[in-house]
Amino acid sequence: MFKKTALTAASIAAVLSTAAFAQDAAATPAPASDTSVFVFNTLLFLISGMVVMFMAAGFCMLEVGLVRSKNAATICLKNIALYSVAGLMVYLVGYQLIYGIAEGGFIAPLDLFWSADESDPLGVGYSANSDWYFQMVFVATAASIVSGTLAERIKLFPFLIFVAVLTGFIYPIQAGWVWGAGWLDGRFDDFAGSTLVHSTGGWAALAGALVLGSRSGKYEGGRVHPMPGSSLPLATLGTFILWLGWFGFNGGSQLALGTIDDAASVAKIFVNTNMAACGGVMTTIILTQVLYKKVDLTIVLNGAIGGLVSITAEPLQPAIWQAILIGSVGGVIVTLSVPLLDKLKIDDVVGAIPAHLFCGIWGTLIVPLSNSGVTIFGQLTGVLAIGVFVFFVSLAVWYALKLTMGLRASADDERIGLDKAELGLEAYPEFSPG
Amino acid sequence: MFKKTALTAASIAAVLSTAAFAQDAAATPAPASDTSVFVFNTLLFLISGMVVMFMAAGFCMLEVGLVRSKNAATICLKNIALYSVAGLMVYLVGYQLIYGIAEGGFIAPLDLFWSADESDPLGVGYSANSDWYFQMVFVATAASIVSGTLAERIKLFPFLIFVAVLTGFIYPIQAGWVWGAGWLDGRFDDFAGSTLVHSTGGWAALAGALVLGSRSGKYEGGRVHPMPGSSLPLATLGTFILWLGWFGFNGGSQLALGTIDDAASVAKIFVNTNMAACGGVMTTIILTQVLYKKVDLTIVLNGAIGGLVSITAEPLQPAIWQAILIGSVGGVIVTLSVPLLDKLKIDDVVGAIPAHLFCGIWGTLIVPLSNSGVTIFGQLTGVLAIGVFVFFVSLAVWYALKLTMGLRASADDERIGLDKAELGLEAYPEFSPG
Amino acid sequence: MFKKTALTAASIAAVLSTAAFAQDAAATPAPASDTSVFVFNTLLFLISGMVVMFMAAGFCMLEVGLVRSKNAATICLKNIALYSVAGLMVYLVGYQLIYGIAEGGFIAPLDLFWSADESDPLGVGYSANSDWYFQMVFVATAASIVSGTLAERIKLFPFLIFVAVLTGFIYPIQAGWVWGAGWLDGRFDDFAGSTLVHSTGGWAALAGALVLGSRSGKYEGGRVHPMPGSSLPLATLGTFILWLGWFGFNGGSQLALGTIDDAASVAKIFVNTNMAACGGVMTTIILTQVLYKKVDLTIVLNGAIGGLVSITAEPLQPAIWQAILIGSVGGVIVTLSVPLLDKLKIDDVVGAIPAHLFCGIWGTLIVPLSNSGVTIFGQLTGVLAIGVFVFFVSLAVWYALKLTMGLRASADDERIGLDKAELGLEAYPEFSPG
Repeated sequence: MFKKTALTAASIAAVLSTAAFAQDAAATPAPASDTSVFVFNTLLFLISGMVVMFMAAGFCMLEVGLVRSKNAATICLKNIALYSVAGLMVYLVGYQLIYGIAEGGFIAPLDLFWSADESDPLGVGYSANSDWYFQMVFVATAASIVSGTLAERIKLFPFLIFVAVLTGFIYPIQAGWVWGAGWLDGRFDDFAGSTLVHSTGGWAALAGALVLGSRSGKYEGGRVHPMPGSSLPLATLGTFILWLGWFGFNGGSQLALGTIDDAASVAKIFVNTNMAACGGVMTTIILTQVLYKKVDLTIVLNGAIGGLVSITAEPLQPAIWQAILIGSVGGVIVTLSVPLLDKLKIDDVVGAIPAHLFCGIWGTLIVPLSNSGVTIFGQLTGVLAIGVFVFFVSLAVWYALKLTMGLRASADDERIGLDKAELGLEAYPEFSPG
Repeated sequence: MFKKTALTAASIAAVLSTAAFAQDAAATPAPASDTSVFVFNTLLFLISGMVVMFMAAGFCMLEVGLVRSKNAATICLKNIALYSVAGLMVYLVGYQLIYGIAEGGFIAPLDLFWSADESDPLGVGYSANSDWYFQMVFVATAASIVSGTLAERIKLFPFLIFVAVLTGFIYPIQAGWVWGAGWLDGRFDDFAGSTLVHSTGGWAALAGALVLGSRSGKYEGGRVHPMPGSSLPLATLGTFILWLGWFGFNGGSQLALGTIDDAASVAKIFVNTNMAACGGVMTTIILTQVLYKKVDLTIVLNGAIGGLVSITAEPLQPAIWQAILIGSVGGVIVTLSVPLLDKLKIDDVVGAIPAHLFCGIWGTLIVPLSNSGVTIFGQLTGVLAIGVFVFFVSLAVWYALKLTMGLRASADDERIGLDKAELGLEAYPEFSPG
Repeated sequence: MFKKTALTAASIAAVLSTAAFAQDAAATPAPASDTSVFVFNTLLFLISGMVVMFMAAGFCMLEVGLVRSKNAATICLKNIALYSVAGLMVYLVGYQLIYGIAEGGFIAPLDLFWSADESDPLGVGYSANSDWYFQMVFVATAASIVSGTLAERIKLFPFLIFVAVLTGFIYPIQAGWVWGAGWLDGRFDDFAGSTLVHSTGGWAALAGALVLGSRSGKYEGGRVHPMPGSSLPLATLGTFILWLGWFGFNGGSQLALGTIDDAASVAKIFVNTNMAACGGVMTTIILTQVLYKKVDLTIVLNGAIGGLVSITAEPLQPAIWQAILIGSVGGVIVTLSVPLLDKLKIDDVVGAIPAHLFCGIWGTLIVPLSNSGVTIFGQLTGVLAIGVFVFFVSLAVWYALKLTMGLRASADDERIGLDKAELGLEAYPEFSPG
């Protein structure tokens, strides 16, 4: 590896030889052929989609590490199930709701059972299936956020029904407003989904936490009773997997790879995404040490995630120092709002509301700092409109579920743990704490 | 991310500019250059191969989560060892047996120590080394299936010798019949290996389970005694890793990426692979809830795998609804055949025989549903021929090992666990259940 | 998947059609356009960088599995923190120190806050940001090596300060000597960093181990007291993740993908990397069985890593059998030097010094076997120069930290575990061994 002479002789010959074809080689680099552009764009969706899909495992590990062992198998089940529900609902109706919307519209007409239209590959520029795959894994991400907040007390089936509504309707409708060229498009900018994905998941989780209530004993006697998670190593693994997946999440949102500009943009997004997370980690380390005289690993893990969420609304335009700053503020937000939620007696088992909702808002509002084409007014409009829509519709769905089938495990089931109660098994049968 | 305007101005300029070179741009998209086609194809093998390689970790985590803690270190050792044995055997003789076969033939002549022939890159269209890598990780997958079924009672070295025979000879000979253009090629279709990889692993595991017998006490007194696994979170992680790897497993089996058709095919394969797994998950959730009034997480994990195995024989042709259906039937097969094996007193520790063998047969036989060029007669021929060959040769090898060095750990060793007996250590020394 | 007819009709048409453009198609394959070459090279950095980034998770899991549970959360924190420190330091000063050096020079002038120069994309041939990302994750790898050796007794903040010096100054200065075209460039060959990355991490770890001393009780009474790790399954997972990441580590170090030669080279590197690890695994299995009558899983995991480190100095030139041999000797080195370190009372918690330092030296010195352009004298020069520089500067930094803020946790803190002492929490609170 000799960096300064990275181009091999063969590469240089290739460039020169190709350049001979171009009419004006000095001014314009010879472009990739239309086939190559199509393959590059499709490949970007597939590679990015794979690591975003793997974020489902990241959320699962993060959450299973932060719940108590008596609820560990249930959270695993919820995570694999919510991904599957998301896949089916996006196929049934979700994708059509995002992209079937009329320009400037509020909602698309009902259209069931998506199928790919690959009839005009060059007009579209990528495989329709690759885009569907990339969008589907985004929707699953929003649902993953909800499962962590509501862990240890929500019953399986009402949770899955909410996930079906969230992934089939709530997420797609608001995503259509922006990414589907609906009424918010052009007023509001959210590159990879600080608001559209992360805050949406966070608002749905917050509504659920309010309807569901806190875990038994969590705020008993006016004090906050810590209920430490069963495996910090698995929670750390989950965070690393999420960090990895975020390169695809943000990088793939460039949506194109077939030109020098697009490839360079994806690379810049990788760097900014990485540095925002580094900023979130270091800030939470320093801040928890200063505030509590101990570094709090669970806050640090959420600091990484908070940094990542914060940069997601605009990972391309910021300079690196801005990305570090944006992610660091994300770390501050996480550190300060985790105890705030406890004061409000909102029981968020894994800290998803600070990391995804609060940092999602922050990341969206700070876009004008680096992107002069975006106004704070437009950003506030989007944050508010999507927040109000997602929060209140979610609240209504959670209430409807509570009134019909009931949301909450019985006090007995909660005490013995959802694994024994709902699944009839134990996550770690040999190591039960008795 | 604005989906409806995904092509950036630069991309469009690139396409237009390239089109100007083409003689008949309206009719035919400008193709990728032969160098680009070569790089795309090679890259497909390398990226796909990487995630399929990582399936070795997925199998390892699935299996270590489903064995008891006293055998957890041993199953880790077996998994990293079997991958290494597979690598060495495929290099020594396996790859040559797959692809050295005469057209229509039964077996290739012996040819030791593979080396890459990269003398005609354009004629082949991809790097020979990249293809070797991709094939090698497929072979390892088949071996991974065996280790789970036979866990908790088989000795290390006879297991590794069987793996050497399986990966060096049994797998390659039958794979040569189809993928090496042997006698089954043209009569029988198995796109990515429902039969050639997954059923092959399953038949070898079944033969081993019959020769080895069940774990002590498993079927004592005519009843089935559950022996729950030590860590469902790790088993879930393993399943997610397998799911991830399957995009490479099936997508890479398109074998080419350098044209619009090939890239679009890989994308469609990703979507179908994903949806078959979603179908397998949801079916097992509903079915175990209906049958047992409890959702069984271990069945659900196997449902995901069963769905993935089911779509592997033909992930390209099915419509999405067909992929969901094919995967869902895989979930039904897993749910119903796990207790069936117990009735037959065949002790399959992780449920690999239902997921890989039975779903592999199902997936192969259902190919004619979506691919009109394939007949059910041809599919039956392949399933039977390969099944008979792999099962009986495996049976003979297992018997030979039993008679010579012995297959089974002693009753004492089984009781204290293979970790202490064979490795002299413990997987979780601080948490031993005493 | 029909391997013998891998090129679809469409691919062949593409090749033929493109060939028609070429002036001399028979002699020279039509090259990729300069845009495609740029995208391919950039993509190689991004994909490789992603899996190398994920090696941070691999090191974390390996180390958390090999420490006792009372230090498990702390090692997780150290690993996510060291990656973040590395990112910030490489941005602040590290990258500039590697590549700002004058040709043949010893050290670059101080230059703070890197920013990408993308003004001449064709001249460079890849996105500057993609290269930065790839280099940054390499630097983090070196730091990961240190955390394992010094686990269970070093305090958090002095460790992080050392990491800042290592990733900001020590690694970059010596990397600049070779990869930055400094004084060692042309005399010394280290393709992907057996010496520059792995031995550098190993020397820094060794210096730290000498200054820090062994864990309390480890060598009490003149005997070696085993302190078995808390989770061999997590250690195994970590090893698999490292193995996966190594394809990016070595493959990405080709630094180019846009020609047939480059793509074929990356593919060959994948195969050799894989086979060296297979050799390391099998050798350690056989050797520990022969020496100890038990296969030692922790040695086998380090055998895989030792094989990977050994091939890293030259993964392209060796024939496959040479790669297997080089990796196998790595396995022998690991097996024999783990007890040797114990004899010298150097306490290396995870075995990082044998795997990274000793195998790094071995891999570097054996390069002349397969690469005739390299001399053993040149290799010795590089190994010695870098070893002396890294070891003694590290020693000085460790001493300075010891004298100022203190390096070592108190005896009490070490006894109760760093998790409780430094973080005020437990990694597995429900399963504490009491």
